This record gives sequence, structure tokens and C-alpha cells, in this order.
Amino acid sequence: MGQGEGPGRFAPRFDAAGLVTAVAVDAASGELLMLAHMDAEALAKTNETGLAHFHSRSRGRLWMKGEESGNTMRVLEIRVDCDQDAIVLRVEPAGPACHTGQRSCFYRVLDGDRLELVED
Amino acid sequence: MGQGEGPGRFAPRFDAAGLVTAVAVDAASGELLMLAHMDAEALAKTNETGLAHFHSRSRGRLWMKGEESGNTMRVLEIRVDCDQDAIVLRVEPAGPACHTGQRSCFYRVLDGDRLELVED
Repeated sequence: MGQGEGPGRFAPRFDAAGLVTAVAVDAASGELLMLAHMDAEALAKTNETGLAHFHSRSRGRLWMKGEESGNTMRVLEIRVDCDQDAIVLRVEPAGPACHTGQRSCFYRVLDGDRLELVED
Repeated sequence: MGQGEGPGRFAPRFDAAGLVTAVAVDAASGELLMLAHMDAEALAKTNETGLAHFHSRSRGRLWMKGEESGNTMRVLEIRVDCDQDAIVLRVEPAGPACHTGQRSCFYRVLDGDRLELVED
């Protein structure tokens, strides 16, 4: 393994905008729920509170998942990838992850150039 | 649902660099394998060949997953998120996803400020 790829210190590799990509996965079902971004502040708040916080690129600010909808995510585990620029939050969601009311943001499947609802 | 959030035409929302985020998931186990980026060319090549292609930000070029290692990924399904800036590839991997030889790039768990190997 190369430097920083084995067990050792967590040293997130933030991009030019100060972000890492974060994927939330339902810890119970393994379902991929949503994808968002975290900066150092969002990581710190998540660790401090046990609830998923992200950095909104469009609003340019910290947000707690569920701060408006109530659909918070309790973070049970954080996994980090080989080059430390992406993380997975294994969570217990309080409700649907998606602002559309779907359980997961990934509720559509590509069929040619069309999107159809996932059947499951 | 807002515009573009229901069934309809696939209209990926590329970022300023022309990319969407792509997550590869093992279609059989549901395990999250890796995270990468795709531009329009990578999407087209993936659809054309049925094998996962990405855009390397560091190398600035198209790459086929497994082009060097042989650990290709056959894409069985593509899912798209609510705002069409992230996609999930449900794949059948020919071998370990990670260049370190691990099955998934997310093989470490955060414990305080330390990374430990996931036990599973």
C-alpha cells in the first residue's frame, strides 16, 4: 500500500473548494441514500453531534440533514476510501433521505435516455 | 416533485468541470465499491460498452476501470439521483475495486482521528 492507504491517521484530502464527497448509506439495509459534500466544519459537527452535517455548495453554508424536514441521520460509522477524498456515512435515517419524499435520492433507473422509477 | 425529478428524460447536471459523481455498487451484495467521476464521454463509453468508464481528474482523461489491472466492472444498471448530478452504477466486478487490492475502496473505518481496517 502507498502512503496513507493503511491504518493510520485520518487526513482527509479536501479538494480545491475544501470538500470531500460523502455518501450516506442505510446501516441496516445497506441502501445508498444520498450523496453530498462535507468540509472540515461539517465533519467536525457530525463527529460532535452524531448527526449528519454537510456543506451545501449551492447555499454556501453548513447544513444539518433534516434541519427543516426532521429527517435527520444518526451516524453509526464513518468509512474512508483509499485516497481519503471520499467518505461513507453508515446511518440510521429518521425518515426519507430525499427531499422528494423518496427513501433514497437514487429512485430512478436509466433506460436508454429515459429515467424510470425503480421498482422495489 | 420539482421539474426534472420524476420519470422523464435523462439530463445529467454536469458541474463546472463537466463532471457528475459516480458511485459503483456491487449489484449482488449491495457493497459500495468506489467513488469516481464521469463526464459525457465516460457516460457514453459506459453505455456503449457496458463496462464502467470514468474521467480521471488527476490524469485529465477517460479511463476504463480495470484497463491496467483487469478488474473491470460490468454495468448492470445505472441509477440517477433527484437532481441528476450523481449516479450509481450497479456493477458486477471482475475483481477487487481498489488499487490496493481491497474489495472496496472504503476498507477503513474512522475511530476518533484514526483509521482502522473494517472487519468483515
